[in-house]
Amino acid sequence: MERQDEGMAFLLQYENIAWYENGKVRILDRRVYPTVKFVECSTHQEVAQAITDMVTQSCGPYVAAPMGMALAAWECRGRKGDEQLTYLKEAAETISNARPTTRARLQIVCQQCVDAAEKAITEGREPLEDVFTEAIEINNRRYAKIAKAADYLVDMMPYRGKVMTQCFAETILGAMLREIKKRNLDIKLFCPETRPYFQGARLTATVARDMGFDVTLITDNMPAFVMKNEGIDLFTSAADAICVDGHVVNKVGTYQIAIAAKYHGIPYFVSGKPEIDHPTIQSVNIEMRDPDFVLQAMGVRTAAEGVKGYYPSFDITPPHLVSGVATDRGIYSPYDLARYFDGMSMAEMKELMV
Amino acid sequence: MERQDEGMAFLLQYENIAWYENGKVRILDRRVYPTVKFVECSTHQEVAQAITDMVTQSCGPYVAAPMGMALAAWECRGRKGDEQLTYLKEAAETISNARPTTRARLQIVCQQCVDAAEKAITEGREPLEDVFTEAIEINNRRYAKIAKAADYLVDMMPYRGKVMTQCFAETILGAMLREIKKRNLDIKLFCPETRPYFQGARLTATVARDMGFDVTLITDNMPAFVMKNEGIDLFTSAADAICVDGHVVNKVGTYQIAIAAKYHGIPYFVSGKPEIDHPTIQSVNIEMRDPDFVLQAMGVRTAAEGVKGYYPSFDITPPHLVSGVATDRGIYSPYDLARYFDGMSMAEMKELMV
Repeated sequence: MERQDEGMAFLLQYENIAWYENGKVRILDRRVYPTVKFVECSTHQEVAQAITDMVTQSCGPYVAAPMGMALAAWECRGRKGDEQLTYLKEAAETISNARPTTRARLQIVCQQCVDAAEKAITEGREPLEDVFTEAIEINNRRYAKIAKAADYLVDMMPYRGKVMTQCFAETILGAMLREIKKRNLDIKLFCPETRPYFQGARLTATVARDMGFDVTLITDNMPAFVMKNEGIDLFTSAADAICVDGHVVNKVGTYQIAIAAKYHGIPYFVSGKPEIDHPTIQSVNIEMRDPDFVLQAMGVRTAAEGVKGYYPSFDITPPHLVSGVATDRGIYSPYDLARYFDGMSMAEMKELMV
Repeated sequence: MERQDEGMAFLLQYENIAWYENGKVRILDRRVYPTVKFVECSTHQEVAQAITDMVTQSCGPYVAAPMGMALAAWECRGRKGDEQLTYLKEAAETISNARPTTRARLQIVCQQCVDAAEKAITEGREPLEDVFTEAIEINNRRYAKIAKAADYLVDMMPYRGKVMTQCFAETILGAMLREIKKRNLDIKLFCPETRPYFQGARLTATVARDMGFDVTLITDNMPAFVMKNEGIDLFTSAADAICVDGHVVNKVGTYQIAIAAKYHGIPYFVSGKPEIDHPTIQSVNIEMRDPDFVLQAMGVRTAAEGVKGYYPSFDITPPHLVSGVATDRGIYSPYDLARYFDGMSMAEMKELMV
């Protein structure tokens, strides 16, 4: 895979994040990205280990886990149907438990693969192809939902204007950029760099540039200045979690930009869906990370010894600073997110966690 | 001079910025600071050149220029009185014109030295000692004013609390920190790092640490989070200019923190004095600097080729975001700064530009 040809936009294709082929699962190593290096797994246990080892991150585990199930189906090929089913259920258990924070969601996607296998076995087929197809479909369904949310989000944009982003938003960023291009809107992007890890600089700005956008990088103390002096039309971000009560949990800095946007009368749209397992913000705990990490930039020490650091991973933006939530079902007021679940079938409810 | 012993607080003493002694002026080279290196000038023309070459910055030229005048007095020692006066007037002209932006103010301090020389010559003395004494007095008067402003500023602080700073504020920062220590207040500092040049990390936090304070460094996307979660009592900054109409011009980021402070109900006090040559913000032009500078951090590239940069040197905080202006004459409402000039003598008016 030629990094030079593909650019950063490479990361936005799930096929590149994890893929099953010929008895192997190849997982993009996010620990060394943007250097493109893959970890190759020959067993589903190795896939689980890769998830444990943070080889893949963000949405990556939900891509890798079903591919790991396809690998498990390959491992037990040719055995008797009931043995295969037992084997796959055990594999689902192993993969789901790879990382505590992703457990509930991985259980669902792994179960979907088990269900596909069971149907194939019942109908007298080797389950491999059905499981692999389901692995692809799981991702397609997720990407389709994200593309719909991007559709609604881009509806909020002017034909010609300036949009401010926050942090790297991976799939939703790619879907948004693709939709803007499809509609041929003339949108210029302003990306804060997102200290201390520079995701905005290294990823958001770089991905957008790869996709041909006019992108301007700013430091994290400039959003208010840019809003006032450049005429930003819209501020948008994804979220680590959107609570049903309208609170948005996202990379630290989002809250501050949302305050500046409100002050300047600029709408803030967040993309995602309300989390049924976070009805209110009360259940969210903001993790503090290694404080020393803010005492350096790109590996170079900035402050003297004895200065303390401080590193909240996320911040919380209250609903009154959020103009709208762009979901696959449309734009919702942050105060009206319970309605997102209205009329949902049980199947749709199950999909919510994926 | 031992950097290790002195620490960053070293920079807060004007004697270290520029000093006349035995026919030489020694100027601290700010271009390489925190490495402590001095440029030694043997003629007043070399002092002017050092000012032109940005050897000294911020308040530095106003310290170096009078010391350059003392050097000029040394250069013309032993000559006839009227020749000495002519020589010193020419030196004043040379030094004042070293840098366009500092011209008006350097003219005043150089004229004060010429006045001191004239008095000495009239009274039959060699002017050197009088000019050198005046050079020290010019700085003492300026430092005394700043110390008074710091006094009023620290009056606004609680006995025990948390203060957020912005950028490096040199003399006023030192005066504020000394006053806090003198009063034995229990003040913890939170310093945003101030991208892209990291003055907050490299200078503010480090100076405060050197002076024994509890200092926490944060990235520029964290002030709002810290205000909400740590209970900041007061936000304070110096200013590159305070207009008489109450607009504050300061390092980019100040405006955004002031918005966040207002949102959280935290007062923002700026230290300095209203600039009589900037009655309104209309006369202020925000300089844009090299945009590529934001594409790196501590010399390491962050974004890909093709991403554009953006670098406004300053931003403007409107008076309705400013709680008060701490001056040498007390705390003023930003809407009432004209009153600062009430009842001023001509001598005080002349001092205003220094």
